[in-house]
Amino acid sequence: MTAPLVGIVMGSRSDWATMKRAAEILDKLGVPHEAKVVSAHRTPQRLVEYATSATARGFKVIIAGAGGAAHLPGMVASMTRLPVLGVPVQSRALSGLDSLLSIVQMPGGVPVGTLAIGEAGAVNAGLLAAQILGLSDPALAERIEAWRAEQTAQVDEAPE
Amino acid sequence: MTAPLVGIVMGSRSDWATMKRAAEILDKLGVPHEAKVVSAHRTPQRLVEYATSATARGFKVIIAGAGGAAHLPGMVASMTRLPVLGVPVQSRALSGLDSLLSIVQMPGGVPVGTLAIGEAGAVNAGLLAAQILGLSDPALAERIEAWRAEQTAQVDEAPE
Amino acid sequence: MTAPLVGIVMGSRSDWATMKRAAEILDKLGVPHEAKVVSAHRTPQRLVEYATSATARGFKVIIAGAGGAAHLPGMVASMTRLPVLGVPVQSRALSGLDSLLSIVQMPGGVPVGTLAIGEAGAVNAGLLAAQILGLSDPALAERIEAWRAEQTAQVDEAPE
Amino acid sequence: MTAPLVGIVMGSRSDWATMKRAAEILDKLGVPHEAKVVSAHRTPQRLVEYATSATARGFKVIIAGAGGAAHLPGMVASMTRLPVLGVPVQSRALSGLDSLLSIVQMPGGVPVGTLAIGEAGAVNAGLLAAQILGLSDPALAERIEAWRAEQTAQVDEAPE
Amino acid sequence: MTAPLVGIVMGSRSDWATMKRAAEILDKLGVPHEAKVVSAHRTPQRLVEYATSATARGFKVIIAGAGGAAHLPGMVASMTRLPVLGVPVQSRALSGLDSLLSIVQMPGGVPVGTLAIGEAGAVNAGLLAAQILGLSDPALAERIEAWRAEQTAQVDEAPE
Amino acid sequence: MTAPLVGIVMGSRSDWATMKRAAEILDKLGVPHEAKVVSAHRTPQRLVEYATSATARGFKVIIAGAGGAAHLPGMVASMTRLPVLGVPVQSRALSGLDSLLSIVQMPGGVPVGTLAIGEAGAVNAGLLAAQILGLSDPALAERIEAWRAEQTAQVDEAPE
Amino acid sequence: MTAPLVGIVMGSRSDWATMKRAAEILDKLGVPHEAKVVSAHRTPQRLVEYATSATARGFKVIIAGAGGAAHLPGMVASMTRLPVLGVPVQSRALSGLDSLLSIVQMPGGVPVGTLAIGEAGAVNAGLLAAQILGLSDPALAERIEAWRAEQTAQVDEAPE
Amino acid sequence: MTAPLVGIVMGSRSDWATMKRAAEILDKLGVPHEAKVVSAHRTPQRLVEYATSATARGFKVIIAGAGGAAHLPGMVASMTRLPVLGVPVQSRALSGLDSLLSIVQMPGGVPVGTLAIGEAGAVNAGLLAAQILGLSDPALAERIEAWRAEQTAQVDEAPE
Repeated sequence: MTAPLVGIVMGSRSDWATMKRAAEILDKLGVPHEAKVVSAHRTPQRLVEYATSATARGFKVIIAGAGGAAHLPGMVASMTRLPVLGVPVQSRALSGLDSLLSIVQMPGGVPVGTLAIGEAGAVNAGLLAAQILGLSDPALAERIEAWRAEQTAQVDEAPE
Repeated sequence: MTAPLVGIVMGSRSDWATMKRAAEILDKLGVPHEAKVVSAHRTPQRLVEYATSATARGFKVIIAGAGGAAHLPGMVASMTRLPVLGVPVQSRALSGLDSLLSIVQMPGGVPVGTLAIGEAGAVNAGLLAAQILGLSDPALAERIEAWRAEQTAQVDEAPE
Repeated sequence: MTAPLVGIVMGSRSDWATMKRAAEILDKLGVPHEAKVVSAHRTPQRLVEYATSATARGFKVIIAGAGGAAHLPGMVASMTRLPVLGVPVQSRALSGLDSLLSIVQMPGGVPVGTLAIGEAGAVNAGLLAAQILGLSDPALAERIEAWRAEQTAQVDEAPE
Repeated sequence: MTAPLVGIVMGSRSDWATMKRAAEILDKLGVPHEAKVVSAHRTPQRLVEYATSATARGFKVIIAGAGGAAHLPGMVASMTRLPVLGVPVQSRALSGLDSLLSIVQMPGGVPVGTLAIGEAGAVNAGLLAAQILGLSDPALAERIEAWRAEQTAQVDEAPE
Repeated sequence: MTAPLVGIVMGSRSDWATMKRAAEILDKLGVPHEAKVVSAHRTPQRLVEYATSATARGFKVIIAGAGGAAHLPGMVASMTRLPVLGVPVQSRALSGLDSLLSIVQMPGGVPVGTLAIGEAGAVNAGLLAAQILGLSDPALAERIEAWRAEQTAQVDEAPE
Repeated sequence: MTAPLVGIVMGSRSDWATMKRAAEILDKLGVPHEAKVVSAHRTPQRLVEYATSATARGFKVIIAGAGGAAHLPGMVASMTRLPVLGVPVQSRALSGLDSLLSIVQMPGGVPVGTLAIGEAGAVNAGLLAAQILGLSDPALAERIEAWRAEQTAQVDEAPE
Repeated sequence: MTAPLVGIVMGSRSDWATMKRAAEILDKLGVPHEAKVVSAHRTPQRLVEYATSATARGFKVIIAGAGGAAHLPGMVASMTRLPVLGVPVQSRALSGLDSLLSIVQMPGGVPVGTLAIGEAGAVNAGLLAAQILGLSDPALAERIEAWRAEQTAQVDEAPE
Repeated sequence: MTAPLVGIVMGSRSDWATMKRAAEILDKLGVPHEAKVVSAHRTPQRLVEYATSATARGFKVIIAGAGGAAHLPGMVASMTRLPVLGVPVQSRALSGLDSLLSIVQMPGGVPVGTLAIGEAGAVNAGLLAAQILGLSDPALAERIEAWRAEQTAQVDEAPE
């Protein structure tokens, strides 16, 4: 079995409906990954353990999704030098604007590469993780190119 | 010397211009307090130590101020059962709307009592901390009443 | 029968769907409380009576929820030195952004510790009230710790 | 001396820079008025007295201006059947969006006729008060028409 | 038959679902009124005729409701010295925030007393119109007081 | 002297600082134009005359700029079948977000082609008017192409 | 068969539900048009070809609709001197506010005439395109006048 | 001389004030980079050439900054499989909210890892690019760790 290269974490189980889109695209591109629920607020210790051991465990990229006052991506980023990608999960009252601002507006020194609100963002977090890994994995880079070409080909010109 | 009952933390030194308003009102009301810079993102370990030792150190209330993707108040709240009050510091681009949403939109289970953006919020965090302590300190409660009465008296009816 | 320590007020009956989350968590933690409809706008006299008698009636914390131009929390806070916690009820047109700003943006001198929009905010208002009371009630503090530990334990690592 | 027909109230002295525009236009139109600082939050008793005695004191219209969590207009409206006009004063962090939503989003049953944020809103509150009074004061109605005609005449077609 | 004192206009037939709340409260308070569809954009001539003849036709107050780029209230206000009250109808994409800003942010010189977004705003426009008319109609003023007292009485203290 | 093909109107003289950018680009491209202050709210009659006579006067495109509750572009559009381009002037409190929504959110049937907030929008309104006229004026089309080529050429690759 | 004068492009097939409103009104007014899916992000080459060949293919106006980070209208505009009209398609999380700002806030030099969010915007893009073409096609101009007169006639005064 | 690994592009020269922060941190970490002005709107051809040749030229990561309707990052991302990081430059009227939404809300399939608005975002884009390169460059990874440790050490606990 291949060790996971991408760690997907999310603030709660309900975020999985969104975050599984990241897992699916990684599956499609053949990138081994692992998904866990790590709540910054309800399991802060698990968060610390997860983030500080991520490099040692062999992860190369972390994808973190959360909604509302979404602290998970930024807090993971504060405790690892791995690239961290953030997915703002669509929240109930404010439609994910709170999630987006909580994730993207990080202070200088601790970056989180933030993707779009919701499922499109999760897909893109998976893709961006693959693109990063593809920098040193030519076979993966080719699979990404192929997937992109397929995407392009599937855009039929006729609107209906 | 009296041990501090209120811990004031802020994400960066530049937040002190705002957060000192909390310290000033606590001084005025005779509530011993301590102020520290604890960056959730640049000093996550210090954050963990601060939050997990807060009860043992004798604090009763924590006031946490931060701007932008403001994770400090929520992360402190995740690691202590002391009441945590959050002050959204006015940010440069989005005027503190990002700070506010990052602090107030906490998920069920980990509350942060959030005050207004900026200096008014810092003053009020100090006051609310004092009101909380006043519940079991009748002398403090009286000082608060006196301060409030003075505030009321100072509102001159004439607009100019 | 135990006298209520926490007073829950809300602007209209329809707010109860949200505010009962505060009552439920207080029940779970064994904190005696009382819930009433007090409309700042339609029953201003009841508001004055409620707020000015709150200390004498033995309340220690007031939780006030309202939506839209939500004046109830701030007006209660203006007439008592008890800590007041505000819950922005999700409004129809603006999803509670109006409620949030109307509650949190209080001027210096009259704090309202504001929680998240909607049910999460109501749960957290109940919790924060309990945390405040727990400062001088070690048994309650232990029940809160236990509840929090249970919360943490319930966060299963597996996303599905 | 003529008894004031319009009562202008504002939440703090600093609001006068905005609210004096209401007074100026009322002066220009010959409408007797009175201006007072009545803080909903710092002087709630004064608010109750002001609002409940407004009819008896001979006021016909109340203009209320406030900023941030602006409760003054709505609370006055809750305690009088006189028409209440609200002026959202431009706030520091959120530029008056908080003031506007706090004033305009009143629940059904307690109206506040809300004007624009800032000085234009104050001018218009004065004008609208005059228009209301002009319904039963033909001389005033004529002065308003004359003022409006003058306004129209002053709009030079040439942009520079 | 009594001549209408309040003119209700709206930008399109679909606004009637909202605006009929204004008509209903005026009915309840015994204020004669008339409702018409006058589109600022599709029937500009009808708009001019309506607004410029409103005084002559005996109206005392105009209530205008519209959604999106809501120009009807402001344009009516520009052509009459009668008090104009604006109701922002909830729009599809932006939930009425566009309607609200298009109505309330009028320049100095042409006021529109703006009410809340949606049905609550329509109710309140009717009420405020009645309050204005009640200034010179003691019987109506009494009916308003009675209606308000009834409203107050109906606010049951028990939340469920 | 050539008759103006583009009419530039603005709500007030203070808008000229923004709107003159439209005039300048039209000058540069050799498109005859005329600029006037026409306030939808203070000079509604002038607005009607302007809009209804625009075709007869030989205009081909109207550029209308206004700020706040910006009704001028939409009202002109309601009274002419000429293409109307709208420029949201940056407003004081809300930075032109109110102007933008008031202009762009027109109902189906009465289009206003809306450009960016502020000076960039005014430049682009001039350019778009020229592009429209260039459809039937090959010499103008060539001047536009030349201007665009020059713009492109001026974008130096070196950032400093 | 008549060559199309208006090119309608959209970022994805799902935008057709919105954009077909543009096609329908062009049909009604007898303006030949063509609709294609051209994704700025998934088919950038198709975008370049489409935009750079638009003039040669005989188009006079381009209507481009897209949602979210909506780059299609602006990118088409950057590669043609034809007038480009933009339709912000209503997005899932942010209701089209992201689409609107991505389309309308173009820098000086590259205009996109932007219409309302959603179907009303698509209708109006079709209409505005027709108005532009009507400048040099008197028969079309008459059909537009007739359509507008019909629109006006259909606005029944009775609200129900 | 070392070939650049990171390409920094920006929409206009005025963006350099922001984007040079990315260059500075890359300098500090010893990452060779190159900065160019590439306007998506004024130099679309240069954009195509830049994006399609980026891999061949040896770049590993692209950092793209732009303001307003910021299409540069997304358009580059549509034409390369290299990871693209986006920096929303603070815009004049809307403070960068338009820039942020135009960059981050990309559709599924074409990711842009978005950083904070303004200088903090530029610093973080540089850092994140370095973190990505550090995955296969242990010496760089160590320099990043050292830089981060220094950052942490510099956070003095004393607020003043």
